[in-house]
Amino acid sequence: MNQYQEAAAVPLRWVGPIALSGNAITGEVDVPLATYESPLWPSVARGAKVSRLCERGIVATVVDERMTRSVLLQAPDAGAALAAVRWLTEGRAELEAVVAARSRFARLLEIRHQIVGDLLFLRFEFATGDASGHNMATLASDALLDYILTALAQLRYGSVSGNFCTDKKATAVNGILGRGKNVVAEIVIPAHVVGSTLHTTAAAVAELNVRKNLIGTTLAGGIRSANAHYANMLLAVYLATGQDAANIVEGSQGITHAEDRDGALYFSCTLPNIIVGTIGNGKNLDFADANLIRLGCRATAEPGANARRLAAIIAATVLCGELSLMAAQTNPGELMRSHIRFERSMEEVVGQ
Amino acid sequence: MNQYQEAAAVPLRWVGPIALSGNAITGEVDVPLATYESPLWPSVARGAKVSRLCERGIVATVVDERMTRSVLLQAPDAGAALAAVRWLTEGRAELEAVVAARSRFARLLEIRHQIVGDLLFLRFEFATGDASGHNMATLASDALLDYILTALAQLRYGSVSGNFCTDKKATAVNGILGRGKNVVAEIVIPAHVVGSTLHTTAAAVAELNVRKNLIGTTLAGGIRSANAHYANMLLAVYLATGQDAANIVEGSQGITHAEDRDGALYFSCTLPNIIVGTIGNGKNLDFADANLIRLGCRATAEPGANARRLAAIIAATVLCGELSLMAAQTNPGELMRSHIRFERSMEEVVGQ
Amino acid sequence: MNQYQEAAAVPLRWVGPIALSGNAITGEVDVPLATYESPLWPSVARGAKVSRLCERGIVATVVDERMTRSVLLQAPDAGAALAAVRWLTEGRAELEAVVAARSRFARLLEIRHQIVGDLLFLRFEFATGDASGHNMATLASDALLDYILTALAQLRYGSVSGNFCTDKKATAVNGILGRGKNVVAEIVIPAHVVGSTLHTTAAAVAELNVRKNLIGTTLAGGIRSANAHYANMLLAVYLATGQDAANIVEGSQGITHAEDRDGALYFSCTLPNIIVGTIGNGKNLDFADANLIRLGCRATAEPGANARRLAAIIAATVLCGELSLMAAQTNPGELMRSHIRFERSMEEVVGQ
Amino acid sequence: MNQYQEAAAVPLRWVGPIALSGNAITGEVDVPLATYESPLWPSVARGAKVSRLCERGIVATVVDERMTRSVLLQAPDAGAALAAVRWLTEGRAELEAVVAARSRFARLLEIRHQIVGDLLFLRFEFATGDASGHNMATLASDALLDYILTALAQLRYGSVSGNFCTDKKATAVNGILGRGKNVVAEIVIPAHVVGSTLHTTAAAVAELNVRKNLIGTTLAGGIRSANAHYANMLLAVYLATGQDAANIVEGSQGITHAEDRDGALYFSCTLPNIIVGTIGNGKNLDFADANLIRLGCRATAEPGANARRLAAIIAATVLCGELSLMAAQTNPGELMRSHIRFERSMEEVVGQ
Repeated sequence: MNQYQEAAAVPLRWVGPIALSGNAITGEVDVPLATYESPLWPSVARGAKVSRLCERGIVATVVDERMTRSVLLQAPDAGAALAAVRWLTEGRAELEAVVAARSRFARLLEIRHQIVGDLLFLRFEFATGDASGHNMATLASDALLDYILTALAQLRYGSVSGNFCTDKKATAVNGILGRGKNVVAEIVIPAHVVGSTLHTTAAAVAELNVRKNLIGTTLAGGIRSANAHYANMLLAVYLATGQDAANIVEGSQGITHAEDRDGALYFSCTLPNIIVGTIGNGKNLDFADANLIRLGCRATAEPGANARRLAAIIAATVLCGELSLMAAQTNPGELMRSHIRFERSMEEVVGQ
Repeated sequence: MNQYQEAAAVPLRWVGPIALSGNAITGEVDVPLATYESPLWPSVARGAKVSRLCERGIVATVVDERMTRSVLLQAPDAGAALAAVRWLTEGRAELEAVVAARSRFARLLEIRHQIVGDLLFLRFEFATGDASGHNMATLASDALLDYILTALAQLRYGSVSGNFCTDKKATAVNGILGRGKNVVAEIVIPAHVVGSTLHTTAAAVAELNVRKNLIGTTLAGGIRSANAHYANMLLAVYLATGQDAANIVEGSQGITHAEDRDGALYFSCTLPNIIVGTIGNGKNLDFADANLIRLGCRATAEPGANARRLAAIIAATVLCGELSLMAAQTNPGELMRSHIRFERSMEEVVGQ
Repeated sequence: MNQYQEAAAVPLRWVGPIALSGNAITGEVDVPLATYESPLWPSVARGAKVSRLCERGIVATVVDERMTRSVLLQAPDAGAALAAVRWLTEGRAELEAVVAARSRFARLLEIRHQIVGDLLFLRFEFATGDASGHNMATLASDALLDYILTALAQLRYGSVSGNFCTDKKATAVNGILGRGKNVVAEIVIPAHVVGSTLHTTAAAVAELNVRKNLIGTTLAGGIRSANAHYANMLLAVYLATGQDAANIVEGSQGITHAEDRDGALYFSCTLPNIIVGTIGNGKNLDFADANLIRLGCRATAEPGANARRLAAIIAATVLCGELSLMAAQTNPGELMRSHIRFERSMEEVVGQ
Repeated sequence: MNQYQEAAAVPLRWVGPIALSGNAITGEVDVPLATYESPLWPSVARGAKVSRLCERGIVATVVDERMTRSVLLQAPDAGAALAAVRWLTEGRAELEAVVAARSRFARLLEIRHQIVGDLLFLRFEFATGDASGHNMATLASDALLDYILTALAQLRYGSVSGNFCTDKKATAVNGILGRGKNVVAEIVIPAHVVGSTLHTTAAAVAELNVRKNLIGTTLAGGIRSANAHYANMLLAVYLATGQDAANIVEGSQGITHAEDRDGALYFSCTLPNIIVGTIGNGKNLDFADANLIRLGCRATAEPGANARRLAAIIAATVLCGELSLMAAQTNPGELMRSHIRFERSMEEVVGQ
């Protein structure tokens, strides 16, 4: 139950199970999808069914994890900004200590910089355990900012966030330097499953992926992204598990890659910026807590393992929905027909 | 109440009132914000307070509205694709009739095309009344696709969606060609209000906007976007009013522009891609319906006027939250302190 | 001969002939390539050889042509900017007359706008005959600006160029709205030619194109572009024919699309922004004039036909070089070996 | 003189001197500009005049330098690709040795990776002394590729260039990770010089920069770039000094930042991707060699110092032209008038 008098009660269904393997989770899991777009449920369910018919299911590989915050400083000129960068590089150990003193969980991983005229943008990267880390990173950056401004009198405060972070904005930097969990979900689907469950062929899906997701998105002026609808699945799981769902903006930047391998379909979804946690704002609401428990994301005490498990499940869920829609779009008319049919049946069921 | 047994009950509060004027709405309105990030409420509330202290309040101008869908076709070669484009241009009246025959509300506004090798991408643009128009546009495009494929035997079906639409993806095309409501929200804040309510100066906000939103986002590799956190406000209103919140991906692409005018602060948020409706999926859920009624977005029978009113309110809400955060970031430490303070007080209140 | 005492004498060779067909040129032409990168010559020559072995050669389709300039104005607010846009739409005939009065050749095709806060960006599109049209468009825009500022007293001058044009910058707008010649070059290469002349297979080229040009460029954060090295060929022909070669910046944004068709290779280069002319700055230098004559680009009096012929030749030249490099990169080590071998032989020949 | 029978003789003039200081060069230098666009000469000359009237002249800071090449590999799956990345990280010393064994000058600085499905993109970064380093980087990457493919039998060759490099393409990766010389050029111009030489005010230039270069480019869908015409100046110096001028594509991505400081104008040009060298292809042509000598770029034996000097000069030249055009565009009509006037006078002089 929700503790607030008022709430936006987003309809939620459990779909699955999805068969999973990889470096963060092995086994079958149901996933909760909260959405106003009911056709999403059968769409993901079809993908989940496919996963159960494949040898390794969906293989989810967590490639990286980190949370970032960039601060903005003004120097007397670019030369002074460059000198500050060198001072920071040499004093790395002190910076790590500043972070450790402020937070039990945050750990400084890396500092990147950009100099524009006399402006200095510093991008701090942190390990943040099972938290998505927004607040932890801001808190740690605040401490680093204090420390730097005290030590380097020639620098002036610009902003605690310089938009080189980048939070909830679709940019290139997060994919290139990393932010959130970087997860690749892959599946190899035997030809007979492609035919019987997806009603298409590997060749048709691979061709559509090139034309629509790669060429079509390029034409549209997309940035570091090539997929059909990652945002739909992300939103639904984020809402169901108490995540800051505004992070679907960068989370939905990812690349679908498909190949016809002698009739079998290799299909993968690469999501470099899944920003989720199992603790923090939203995760303690009763329903979110219950959903995280049912997902097995409260099961271990190893810092970060619960969040990595969740990220792997999310990437697999995205693959299920992406695969299903792509298969549908290889067939003229199927998409619309299935939308209409499902929404009509939903209306009957729920009296919408 | 929600008709589903299960739901993600996203905490919701009404904030305001916001003082508004412009070509879609005049007067004061409270706005509902559903979010797991509770600091958003006082942040928007501060902006709303500012709006009530300014002569015209926030002036929201609806510049354009349309919904789009792109289809993908394959021609024998680029020359044949070009011939098809010319045939479509000459047969414009027939295409409008095809759309009118399929839908009572959708009206064909424009057709754009892109030719890549032998691939032909057609982007249909529709007026869709008070609906956001996803399904209406897909249905109409499906009809157009049938019509074209029947008439031009040399073309082959590629996809009912070619990603040149573009739905729920951050690209350049929507801002350049239009998709959803294009709304500009502006305010001129007297110097004494900037000082007393926002605790900053017009010069500081304008300077921060250039350095963070414009230069910082450029550095990050952003695409057609320059703002601090539009996504947060959009998500909260979208969830509260039954919108397809995955559309915050493109909705959050917008530009904040601020100027110091002799101490007064000119501050504007331009949101070219607000994709919302007052009818359709999600809007009939009890709470969404009630919220739309309270917003005055069920009040008129003029097609499109309710949705324009909603879009104007949303743009103004975005301005409130953007203004408040930008003001906060001009002051070292304020952001973090206010987050911590508010979250602590929330915990006391709601027992999180 | 060059009339200046000093010059940068860029080495030039004629390569070809390239076999061409399409809507702007039919027949075989040699092309002049001025470059400091000598391996470009044999690379394009190999592609030209391929073209002569295919039935229709390279088919070049000129899809569109226009030149643009955007001006920037400031209005009292967004509402006033919108009113100005409506005034311009209604007074379209007068605007055409303003352009016609200023220039014998420029003709107003279209006006696009963007409103950001109180700023109004107008993008004028012109037909400019055989000129690339930079100056013609600026002159006409200047006249339009005068006319608008005189008629609408509430608007203030911002800039004669507002960067929404966009000239010599890599952006999305030119590809979406059009600027310069939009040309598609296509070829279908029989399997035996792919094997004997390009030492590869259609499948290998198509696969590499997806992985490198589409996925690789997406990863790099490219914008509306997916190719291996269009810039090299463009620069070489632009310099050889007196073009403003800084326009390779947007000219090199284009998409290579390749497919394996039962062993035959479908290969296309789509270049939406070839900004070239056969008259104007640079084209009257003795060598440029001579080169344009030899290309057959001084042969007709039909306005625009010479420039379209040149654009078609350039797109075909780009295809030759792109095809050759892509084929080479399917084979480990070939690229480097051919570079080293050719540069060594060049050194022997020219005593570099 | 040129050793080739044929050449594109691009008109060249020396402009200046430009007054310079910073970490790579101090003093005054004339610069050679080869261009078909003659108005560029007086434009840069005006900026050079301004530089001589300012205390430190133009301060050019070389922030970074490196050359890159990305290779593309295919792994059995993402997990195997991740294992390969870890193997490379642990075996860093061996990789450095492989590079050292292949080249006297190249030194491995950094390896970055991207995993997309089962594809592995590796981006190698090298120090390359006074060479721009294209060939050196390709040669070294070729050696690394051989080494990796031999050691890790599960990987397959994809391409020696995976477009994540990125060469001669406008992307985000080069600015974020670095490629070529990263140079910031800055100047502080006293108010009276802004008025007397540039006929404008600091406030007007700063305002125009925000509206045109930052907002206008954002509207156009630009990527990591905000300037008026860097490409023009880069092309002219690149051609005059034997550079591979196709590198203006990424070189022209940079940010102009201007501020009004109590009437004085702070003006800076940040160019993160100046890809130039003083040795290698093109630099041995007689005129290029002579020009490099006159620029003082053959004067020292310290590896890299000549190329850094050249990069600093180029950034300063870009600033001169950018400043001059921006000042002109603050005044209605000046741009066109100066173009027409200058071209007419050029015609008289050279008999064009």
